[in-house]
Amino acid sequence: MEKIEGIKVIAFDADDTLWVNEPYFQEIENKFCEMMEVYHPRHTVSRELLGREIRNLEDYGYGIKSFMLSMIETAIDISDSTIKVEVIERIIQYGKEMLHKPIELLDGVENVLGQVSKQFRVVMATKGDLLDQERKLIKSGLEKYFHHIEILSDKKEINYQKLIRHLDINPGQFLMIGNSLKSDVLPVLNLGGWACHVPFHTTWEHEKIDYSIENQKFRQFTSISDLLEII
Amino acid sequence: MEKIEGIKVIAFDADDTLWVNEPYFQEIENKFCEMMEVYHPRHTVSRELLGREIRNLEDYGYGIKSFMLSMIETAIDISDSTIKVEVIERIIQYGKEMLHKPIELLDGVENVLGQVSKQFRVVMATKGDLLDQERKLIKSGLEKYFHHIEILSDKKEINYQKLIRHLDINPGQFLMIGNSLKSDVLPVLNLGGWACHVPFHTTWEHEKIDYSIENQKFRQFTSISDLLEII
Repeated sequence: MEKIEGIKVIAFDADDTLWVNEPYFQEIENKFCEMMEVYHPRHTVSRELLGREIRNLEDYGYGIKSFMLSMIETAIDISDSTIKVEVIERIIQYGKEMLHKPIELLDGVENVLGQVSKQFRVVMATKGDLLDQERKLIKSGLEKYFHHIEILSDKKEINYQKLIRHLDINPGQFLMIGNSLKSDVLPVLNLGGWACHVPFHTTWEHEKIDYSIENQKFRQFTSISDLLEII
Repeated sequence: MEKIEGIKVIAFDADDTLWVNEPYFQEIENKFCEMMEVYHPRHTVSRELLGREIRNLEDYGYGIKSFMLSMIETAIDISDSTIKVEVIERIIQYGKEMLHKPIELLDGVENVLGQVSKQFRVVMATKGDLLDQERKLIKSGLEKYFHHIEILSDKKEINYQKLIRHLDINPGQFLMIGNSLKSDVLPVLNLGGWACHVPFHTTWEHEKIDYSIENQKFRQFTSISDLLEII
């Protein structure tokens, strides 16, 4: 892979790039669909929940609390307001369990961060709840490698523009690494920054895109450890 | 009032310092207590809700989504799981209304920001949901005065320590302005920073303290416009 040049800051996405996240959401979504099976088949419940989550994004943003509220709203909606209180209690319980999940680091992460943080300013750039992401960073033991955390309300061009301005660098000095082509790669390339894609085995429906990327500032990784060969 | 010297960054709290916030929470809390009056007198419901909010802080953090979830949990709890689904629907509706409230700027704010942003780096330092605070800043028309927003998961010494480090200044170069002695003033003074208190007519129970502050880096304002006389 061709080397990357001229960068000053490396930003890492967190969920499903540094540690496991999406499978926990899917596990709870499965339990939710199972509870709601008395009203609709699982795939219908799942589709309704996804639609609700997307409609709520503008109001609630990303993260576990938003997911909890979207499940509650979907349960009320699908049951035509006849849902039992126990189901709502169970949803809240699931949400709280998610907030307390242990952190499972992905392969190679600690080694890569240890190496690159010696040469570059390294930041964590993620969506989701600030408190939850801070808690996960502390639990992960990775805090020492990061200059600071940047929580973005979304990962569109405008958000990266603000981030890059805030870092006092130009886009060509910025490298983003993450598992989502839509959120971590495309908007950064569009601004003239560098981006590396580290695939994770599962991706949230709302993050999927279906075309390939041709850009000289883009690198496709098979593992996060590939980073060490190109900087 | 004695002048403040040597500062580089002025940080403003947002809710109830720049714009009205707590009265909206109190308005919804009143409606909630009214709905729950069939189970308990209002002051009991209010106390239960406060207790729930405080217990949930560690899991949920601050902001409207946390408030919504705490109201839902309190409703389930107080009703011994017999609460009607319509009540939960109403809570969600209230929360969404709060997220869409218009911004009501407090007196003098725009003039003060216009003046100080010419001489200092000005940031907004607030708790709450990132997305909600960003939305309020944009709706307020005040965005142009701020270098950037800092959302803190809490406003304790450790959070200000990280903020000050992130701003690449020392504590003596940092001035915090806000309506909460507990969150905006005390932790900053403890770190060796400057702090000004701008009282707001109402304060959330959890933010109240009952002693007076003696510190040469502390200034008590009657209005935010007092700032212009001391810098």
